Amino acid sequence: MTKHFNKLTSLVLGTTLVATVASAAGGGELEKVMKARGLTENDVIRAAKTYNPTGGRDEFIVFSSGGQSGQVIVYGVPSMRILKYIAVFTPEPWQGYGYDVDSLKILRQGNIRGREINWGDTHHPALSEKDGKYDGRWLAINDKANPRIAIIDLHDFETKQIVSNKVFKSAHGGAFFTPNSEYILDAAQYAAPFDNNYHPIEEYKESYRGGVTIWKFDDKIGKIIEKDSFTVEMPPYMQDLSDSGKGVSNGWGFTNSFNTEMYTGGIEVGMPPNEAGMSRNDTDFLHVYNWEKLAKLAKDKKNVKIINGHKVIPIEVAVKNDALFLIPEPKSPHGVDVSPDGEYITVCGKLDTHASVYKWSKIKELIKSKKYTGKDPYGIPILDMKSSLHGQVELGLGPLHNQYSPVDGEIYTSLYVDSQVVKWNYKTLKVLDKENVHYNIGHLCGMEGKTADPQGKYIIALNKLAIDRFQNVGPLHPQNHQLIDISGKTMDLLVDMPLPLGEPHQAVAIRAEKLHPHVRYKMGTNSKTGKEHVGKTLAGQERIERRNAKGKIDPKGKNVFIYSTFVRSHINPERITVNKGDNVTMYMTNLERAQDETHGFTVDNFNVHASLEPGETAEINFIADIEGVFPYYCTEFCSALHLEMMGYLMVKDPNKKYVSAQKIKMGTMNKEQLDAEYKKTVAVNDATDAVIQSVVAFLKANKFGDHKTVAALVTDAFDQYGQIPAQKKLADEAYKKGDIEKAILFENMIWQLMVKTADVGIRAKDALVRLVATKQSASAQAGERTFGEGGCSGCHVIGKVSSGPDLTGALQRHENGEKWVSKFILNPEEMYDDPYVKSMIDYFNLKMPNQHMNEQETKDIIEYLKWIDENANLF
Amino acid sequence: MTKHFNKLTSLVLGTTLVATVASAAGGGELEKVMKARGLTENDVIRAAKTYNPTGGRDEFIVFSSGGQSGQVIVYGVPSMRILKYIAVFTPEPWQGYGYDVDSLKILRQGNIRGREINWGDTHHPALSEKDGKYDGRWLAINDKANPRIAIIDLHDFETKQIVSNKVFKSAHGGAFFTPNSEYILDAAQYAAPFDNNYHPIEEYKESYRGGVTIWKFDDKIGKIIEKDSFTVEMPPYMQDLSDSGKGVSNGWGFTNSFNTEMYTGGIEVGMPPNEAGMSRNDTDFLHVYNWEKLAKLAKDKKNVKIINGHKVIPIEVAVKNDALFLIPEPKSPHGVDVSPDGEYITVCGKLDTHASVYKWSKIKELIKSKKYTGKDPYGIPILDMKSSLHGQVELGLGPLHNQYSPVDGEIYTSLYVDSQVVKWNYKTLKVLDKENVHYNIGHLCGMEGKTADPQGKYIIALNKLAIDRFQNVGPLHPQNHQLIDISGKTMDLLVDMPLPLGEPHQAVAIRAEKLHPHVRYKMGTNSKTGKEHVGKTLAGQERIERRNAKGKIDPKGKNVFIYSTFVRSHINPERITVNKGDNVTMYMTNLERAQDETHGFTVDNFNVHASLEPGETAEINFIADIEGVFPYYCTEFCSALHLEMMGYLMVKDPNKKYVSAQKIKMGTMNKEQLDAEYKKTVAVNDATDAVIQSVVAFLKANKFGDHKTVAALVTDAFDQYGQIPAQKKLADEAYKKGDIEKAILFENMIWQLMVKTADVGIRAKDALVRLVATKQSASAQAGERTFGEGGCSGCHVIGKVSSGPDLTGALQRHENGEKWVSKFILNPEEMYDDPYVKSMIDYFNLKMPNQHMNEQETKDIIEYLKWIDENANLF
Repeated sequence: MTKHFNKLTSLVLGTTLVATVASAAGGGELEKVMKARGLTENDVIRAAKTYNPTGGRDEFIVFSSGGQSGQVIVYGVPSMRILKYIAVFTPEPWQGYGYDVDSLKILRQGNIRGREINWGDTHHPALSEKDGKYDGRWLAINDKANPRIAIIDLHDFETKQIVSNKVFKSAHGGAFFTPNSEYILDAAQYAAPFDNNYHPIEEYKESYRGGVTIWKFDDKIGKIIEKDSFTVEMPPYMQDLSDSGKGVSNGWGFTNSFNTEMYTGGIEVGMPPNEAGMSRNDTDFLHVYNWEKLAKLAKDKKNVKIINGHKVIPIEVAVKNDALFLIPEPKSPHGVDVSPDGEYITVCGKLDTHASVYKWSKIKELIKSKKYTGKDPYGIPILDMKSSLHGQVELGLGPLHNQYSPVDGEIYTSLYVDSQVVKWNYKTLKVLDKENVHYNIGHLCGMEGKTADPQGKYIIALNKLAIDRFQNVGPLHPQNHQLIDISGKTMDLLVDMPLPLGEPHQAVAIRAEKLHPHVRYKMGTNSKTGKEHVGKTLAGQERIERRNAKGKIDPKGKNVFIYSTFVRSHINPERITVNKGDNVTMYMTNLERAQDETHGFTVDNFNVHASLEPGETAEINFIADIEGVFPYYCTEFCSALHLEMMGYLMVKDPNKKYVSAQKIKMGTMNKEQLDAEYKKTVAVNDATDAVIQSVVAFLKANKFGDHKTVAALVTDAFDQYGQIPAQKKLADEAYKKGDIEKAILFENMIWQLMVKTADVGIRAKDALVRLVATKQSASAQAGERTFGEGGCSGCHVIGKVSSGPDLTGALQRHENGEKWVSKFILNPEEMYDDPYVKSMIDYFNLKMPNQHMNEQETKDIIEYLKWIDENANLF
Repeated sequence: MTKHFNKLTSLVLGTTLVATVASAAGGGELEKVMKARGLTENDVIRAAKTYNPTGGRDEFIVFSSGGQSGQVIVYGVPSMRILKYIAVFTPEPWQGYGYDVDSLKILRQGNIRGREINWGDTHHPALSEKDGKYDGRWLAINDKANPRIAIIDLHDFETKQIVSNKVFKSAHGGAFFTPNSEYILDAAQYAAPFDNNYHPIEEYKESYRGGVTIWKFDDKIGKIIEKDSFTVEMPPYMQDLSDSGKGVSNGWGFTNSFNTEMYTGGIEVGMPPNEAGMSRNDTDFLHVYNWEKLAKLAKDKKNVKIINGHKVIPIEVAVKNDALFLIPEPKSPHGVDVSPDGEYITVCGKLDTHASVYKWSKIKELIKSKKYTGKDPYGIPILDMKSSLHGQVELGLGPLHNQYSPVDGEIYTSLYVDSQVVKWNYKTLKVLDKENVHYNIGHLCGMEGKTADPQGKYIIALNKLAIDRFQNVGPLHPQNHQLIDISGKTMDLLVDMPLPLGEPHQAVAIRAEKLHPHVRYKMGTNSKTGKEHVGKTLAGQERIERRNAKGKIDPKGKNVFIYSTFVRSHINPERITVNKGDNVTMYMTNLERAQDETHGFTVDNFNVHASLEPGETAEINFIADIEGVFPYYCTEFCSALHLEMMGYLMVKDPNKKYVSAQKIKMGTMNKEQLDAEYKKTVAVNDATDAVIQSVVAFLKANKFGDHKTVAALVTDAFDQYGQIPAQKKLADEAYKKGDIEKAILFENMIWQLMVKTADVGIRAKDALVRLVATKQSASAQAGERTFGEGGCSGCHVIGKVSSGPDLTGALQRHENGEKWVSKFILNPEEMYDDPYVKSMIDYFNLKMPNQHMNEQETKDIIEYLKWIDENANLF
């Protein structure tokens, strides 16, 4: 009996607990959604793990290569929402990249042998490091197809530099920063002659070469210093991926390879194809080199050959100085990944089922004691594989890449053929868990997973074939990045993320809080150089200058320079006339200070476009080689009046005679009519100003300055409002001079400024209300939802009389207000004869309908109304 | 007492119900996640409403303009995941668009006055219609900056046509299909002279013109027919958006405007800017025109003027034929949106707080009875606004665009300044609900929300300023599309979606099931024309031809044609030698039939790239104008051996003498060594084949043919496997001839084919297992999760002996198996002396640890093990 009673009690107590959870998860409604959408309980947990409520932030930011799009993709984890495509090797008009003068200069830094290259095959992004940890300052990424490296500035997420490799013909194994961002390692892929001459394939072993380029990086300015960079010559083994040593192995670099067979195909002459010949050997070579020593060697002219203007350290110099070694590694490896402490180096041979873990202290000892098992045909000492290994472990089919977690010895490896991620321990050499992915996985991305300080929590599988994962969008499918939760004992696949553009090759993730991009530039900044732009123009400095070939101002000059400004919602100037054949340069300064107030600019038909972030000055240039009239406009929906933010470029042929058109007769207004319109316009402005002043009073009363986001909005609103006196002066002057037409127009301009002020002001007010209101109880929160979902808000708007009365203070209007309102909600019909209700029915010509609320819902609505009364001053 | 008892009973009964919900929502774990991530109950419901489990499909597909990126964005609703960026007006290398010959031809159709334009400002996508409803076949989109329309084929999501507007200088108000896709309406924006000559701004009223181009569309072939298209001349009122009538208003078009003031600015000479002058009037003009009648008129030469080779119907002709009228509409409107039945036309003036609902029957009557209130300066009859109106309703600040739902009279409008979506009724003219969005909303997108058959369910707010919604990614912010649930009585904002590239202007949504894109092309298809490609090459037809200027094969010709094929993982040919200066054309056929087996192709440094979908033939062309060695390769991660899918282009200078390099001495193998390697290779192949045969047996035994997805994978696997006999023959021939080296390589090739077979075969097997297994009970499902999360899977792998015994059949191994296993899970330590347990501890050298499972978890695991036993044949 006691036992039974206890069981009942526990059930009853249990009810409270379970009810909390059920309520915490929305009870019946959640069940309804699950049923409708066929979701399991695990699905809901996964949804909750990846969902960001409106305005919610992500914990990690991923920088993924954009593959053949030539761009970099930025997305958030765990929401897996893509935040930006950064233009890098391919022109991209939204960002103006390659369509304005300054960004085109960056793009053209990537010319190869004088040829323009307008795309890239981006492969391996790398974040700059301090002590082997990410510092959130710079991002480097390589182009495999046209061997280049680009540097992206994480202060504004723009590409600031492209350098081309002068000796490689392709480059796969980069970019990898050394632990203090001193250098960037970048290995070749397809061996080729270092010079630019023809060499027959039959002389592959003799004339073709691989190597690793060691780019000097100045991390203060975020630039590669080409003159201090050099390449280490290596045999034509098709170097693949690299990693930089760290901790105990700092100063060393590791690069693997996949064609030590030096096979060169010939399918067209009846030979087996490359894929057969390049994977014949059971082992290939891991290249181990001392970049620190090599960098010192490169400073001495006698150690280097200059090829195409670039320093190359020949194999024999590297060998002679004990700076280059080979270790056999399993069949055609993809990844070589150094552990957080630098002691273990894991290599996976994609055609071997094992991971091989090398131990740095063993390698170091072999090097120190010069214990070689022999030399390769190029004279490079070979270290014994077995003596270098910590051990091997069987993982499955097609192991490729590795990422680390903060748990000691824990490592995650992608299995391409098995389509799995395997969790194992590289110290104990034990497999711990496997998770299926869909489908073939290439790289995988841990959170800071290859730094000295891995963050764990998630692994992203970068899958190669999406096939049946998404709605079919044609024969070319998106890629699929799958987020895996690794915080539990075993992995759990949370969600699929389609990649809509490009085949991302590798990705790196950084804690979001390490990034500190700015939201505006110092007024007049050339964003590509970070310096003041030669075309910086402030309000009042707008002008059009005509210059001659020597750059002197000259009315006969053929070079037209337009110094223009942009502010919501006009461009100054609005009319530009040039001669056919003129060389037109337009400098554009975005005078806005407000976050996100970007303006775009184009002149129709001239294939130019610029994106002007707040404070930025950009430049476009074109030859006005066709006659005609060309509208120009702001290409951003920057304000309600964005369509009106435009002007005309007129290109006149100086050798042509133009006949004036016959005037069309238009209706005109008399003085009385003009005067009436003027008065009406002024009256509208006065009324609008009164609204603005009431918002201002509210903002001040509620100390908007205490809230950063709100304060920023208010500053922005006042920026618009502050322009009114100048316009008022112009209107008044015109009116005094009797030009009522002009006065009306300037008053109209005042109204536009007021609308923009109100736009931002209202946004500030709404943000402030939620910030300063008291916290809602769970019941009040449920009540607000019921109020919205149950139909109440159809007629009642809080703080306003709408189709029904304002409910602010409703509970105070009647004796026993809560009971009265509750009764009215539950059974309104019974109260239609109540004198107050009757008067309301008469006034609104509507009867309060029965919305069939239950008791709990009614109680919640009362709690919501109480919360409104507590915060009545805010509505 | 009875009452109390009842209460207890209801609580106990209630427990079951609530427990179901709690369990349905994962109980404690969900609560943990909510707490850790700060989620409310509403957040979890919203998460569940938008989450797609892995492989889950979306109900609707959205086609959004890509703004200044010049592309089209495709995403799913409700998951808000972006599936594709379709290249349209801007070159895009991933898709090869503008980087291969055939797509470049499409891009160059968009030249204007002979000039190359490499970007676009895409604005308004439109889906083709049948009876006013979407048919899922074609998508049209306009470029505002360079007036053009592009047609995208929804059978493969590729751009197939671009036409430029010969008389407009910008075009905003398109594209809008007529109800049976007979025509596409496309209005001008910034008025400009129709000819290409200079006309001073002072002659704006006389020489500048607006209009609507009515493009003839052939919906069978998905092409605009330029010769049957024409433009209706209109006054320089800056036409804005348009809509096509439908139902009762079929045959008519509606286009609004915003500068009936015909103001032309002059800020640079002290005049108020355009924004002030263009919004002076309280009303602008809605243009109402009979496109059906105008199309007939345009067929008669005497009704049209030919300007720049394009037909223009002058205003006077349109007026004379009662085909063009004006109606005043509120201040500077943005949207004009015809109701599903065609009877109501809603216009929102962005500087007015009202929506104005016009009634077609009233307009029609006024037109019929020729009741005009006057004429504009260009002679166009003006209809009375009040007499045309059904009514007006106050919505809020900055109303812009409208979308419909299936509920009679229900309409949704965006409020730019208030940053809200308002739901109201255009028949009763009542406001029903408002929802805040973040922040300023431009267009909004309903599900088929402007067709004759709106689908309701969701509205997407296309917001313009993201500001604080996302992690800061620099001064240029993503846009924000917010998904709103409209299935309840009031709206509920579900989730934010950042747009990473471009400022989407408008979007249209279609039910996903209406789209039927294919996954492969007929072998050798030119995807841009849909016809067989001139360069189609099948296996065995690969060749290199040299032709002269006349196209004749000629060893002295300077034109090199390469007919190549692509298949996992080799390109045929692998070596190409040409002379410096040769004009090189490469035809590439992707021989794959398997879904998603795309290959990419580039020749390093030549700025070419092609994407080859299964069955596609593409073409690249370049002048080999620099000497050297240039690797080429497949740019897709198409298989584990993708790096090996490469070859070399060698460009030789025919006027240069080359000296042979001195041979490097390499080690060679003797006959015994070669023989040993040969035998080893054959043995590995035999073993691999045995694995493949076991998978094949499993697939056959489980009738893989009954499952479409699995059958497709098996076909793909056999495609690889089927290539083995030919390779085997080559290997055997070589061996017979004594060329063991070559025999080894061909055996290696066999192994590669086997690996690819196994890759796909395993994927097929895994898919089949889940399809044919019995359905898991809720408890078994919970058990699988506990098995995974609780640590069991660290040692036990179902169907395999791993670090612990295989658990298939575990329940049968002991008497009272369930009880035995249950006891062992709960208290393993107590059973270490059990003889069976002891033997296992000895064998695995590991003791089963206590994982601290509770009774329920243990029960669930037992259920999971039962499920495994039921399906033991599958593991």
